[in-house]
Amino acid sequence: MRVPKELRTFLLKEKAFFIATHVNPEGDALGSSIALTMALESIGKEVFLYDRDPVPHFYRFLPGHAKFKNYYSPSLVSRIPLILLDCNEIERAGLAEVKIPCSVVIDHHETVRAFGDIKWIMPHAAATGMMVYWLIKEIGVPLTRDIAINLYTAIANDTGTFRYSNTSSEVLRICAELIDLGVSPGAISECLYETWSGGRFKLMTDVFQTLDVRGDVAIIHATEEMFQRTGTSASDTENFSNFPRMINEIKISAFFRKIKEGWKISLRSKGDVNVAEIAALFNGGGHRNAAGYKINADDISSAKDELITALTERGLIHTRQ
Amino acid sequence: MRVPKELRTFLLKEKAFFIATHVNPEGDALGSSIALTMALESIGKEVFLYDRDPVPHFYRFLPGHAKFKNYYSPSLVSRIPLILLDCNEIERAGLAEVKIPCSVVIDHHETVRAFGDIKWIMPHAAATGMMVYWLIKEIGVPLTRDIAINLYTAIANDTGTFRYSNTSSEVLRICAELIDLGVSPGAISECLYETWSGGRFKLMTDVFQTLDVRGDVAIIHATEEMFQRTGTSASDTENFSNFPRMINEIKISAFFRKIKEGWKISLRSKGDVNVAEIAALFNGGGHRNAAGYKINADDISSAKDELITALTERGLIHTRQ
Repeated sequence: MRVPKELRTFLLKEKAFFIATHVNPEGDALGSSIALTMALESIGKEVFLYDRDPVPHFYRFLPGHAKFKNYYSPSLVSRIPLILLDCNEIERAGLAEVKIPCSVVIDHHETVRAFGDIKWIMPHAAATGMMVYWLIKEIGVPLTRDIAINLYTAIANDTGTFRYSNTSSEVLRICAELIDLGVSPGAISECLYETWSGGRFKLMTDVFQTLDVRGDVAIIHATEEMFQRTGTSASDTENFSNFPRMINEIKISAFFRKIKEGWKISLRSKGDVNVAEIAALFNGGGHRNAAGYKINADDISSAKDELITALTERGLIHTRQ
Repeated sequence: MRVPKELRTFLLKEKAFFIATHVNPEGDALGSSIALTMALESIGKEVFLYDRDPVPHFYRFLPGHAKFKNYYSPSLVSRIPLILLDCNEIERAGLAEVKIPCSVVIDHHETVRAFGDIKWIMPHAAATGMMVYWLIKEIGVPLTRDIAINLYTAIANDTGTFRYSNTSSEVLRICAELIDLGVSPGAISECLYETWSGGRFKLMTDVFQTLDVRGDVAIIHATEEMFQRTGTSASDTENFSNFPRMINEIKISAFFRKIKEGWKISLRSKGDVNVAEIAALFNGGGHRNAAGYKINADDISSAKDELITALTERGLIHTRQ
């Protein structure tokens, strides 16, 4: 991966940076932001690291997570350059109102927008953590164990710990190097996948009981009553939408979660099936294999029916006999 | 990893081999056996590949899986050397009655037994697939894409696709090389994790409903009635024992499956907790983090109680208030 020369020059020249990543941060946002912060600090730069939202509890094993602030001083931000990581619009970082002297964008998500004075957008990078790995090498900072843990977590997160199709040989070679620097893959996987509450496990069981298979589509849902009974909340449903993909014949899985205004729907698909197009019909958005939207219907069966109709009309449900 | 010189010499000298692996074969047994078979065939050796049980349906994406025979001719077997893979006792391969001229054992499981004229036992190898990788290099056979797919599946299987603590930098570097030979990690993960039947998903939901948490131990169980209702069988429960490990406070998970004679128990643990020692108390066996045994009790609660008592006596259950 080639790091833009102007980015390297810029990072080495400036004295202070405001690093921000997207709201509701996950492993790649957190790990790549902390890693870059540590690298820049190690060569004497001053870094202010910001996220609108707190670091989720189960990511607090990341060395340096406490560097994140959930506030910022507008006067500071108006004086130092912004580095936006793992997203490419300042609105995604909850920063719409800020006046910025200049900005760098480092992201692996596709973009049609033109934000950023220096843009390094690599949609083929498996994770922003991969880009930050190369960037740190490029500015000549040695990788420490703490930086390695953050980069490994970032890359593990966005490749489903090397299960998704974006797992390349480069991904594995870089992660091998990070292990040699002291990363413990088992310990990180435990932090990422084995820190559920008992209530969350019970909620999952309840949600799985609602499985409704329509042709190639699997639908599951969570009601307010389930959250109450299991002592859980919306954040405990992270990743639930992925599970029905385990079923062989399923091409699309849909998870309906009850919210005040109606239902929030998370769609996941396998292979070429594009659920972003479906979400867009309902004014939602996302990627080809992971998208979402909200609807106002109160009743689960009418909420489901709208989706089923949309999928059937677009030939995305192939009902089998 | 150093391959014993006598093993290399032996493989190059002999003309025909009987390769066998353990009953109820999983990814490492199948992948490493097929890979070695292909490598030996490519240098003109004759190989008879045997498993007592059929290759499970969801492993039939492995190139060369049809090489497996579920029968053998005793006269053939009495004439050619046996190579036992991913196990170290002929009983584990269902071969107790066979007369063998000489035998090779290649395995990463601990052993106290002395079976095998040439023994290559590497308990620190993450998978038998890792050993076969080095062995194929040692006998000078170029890795083909088909061999690579089998080795990758073997290693992925035994490292939880790089999530377990046996995931070393060597594991990732070898798998990177296999990807460069044409392995598609996303496609293999889909075959391994996303080919459940709908019935299996329902069975899992039923089994999860039986969750019984005792201190640090989570117990789940499957009854005959559940298998009947969901149209599933014992092989559909593969991996169920791992799920309760997702719960933060759980150190040991135990999955009880009803069998004719009583219950078959699969134990899984996190970190340093050694469940092989517990299984040994009931004449079972396994590794530190994955072991199993059978008991004759018909009633689930007395079956559970025996385990709970054993765990409590050994200080492995820390009951919280």
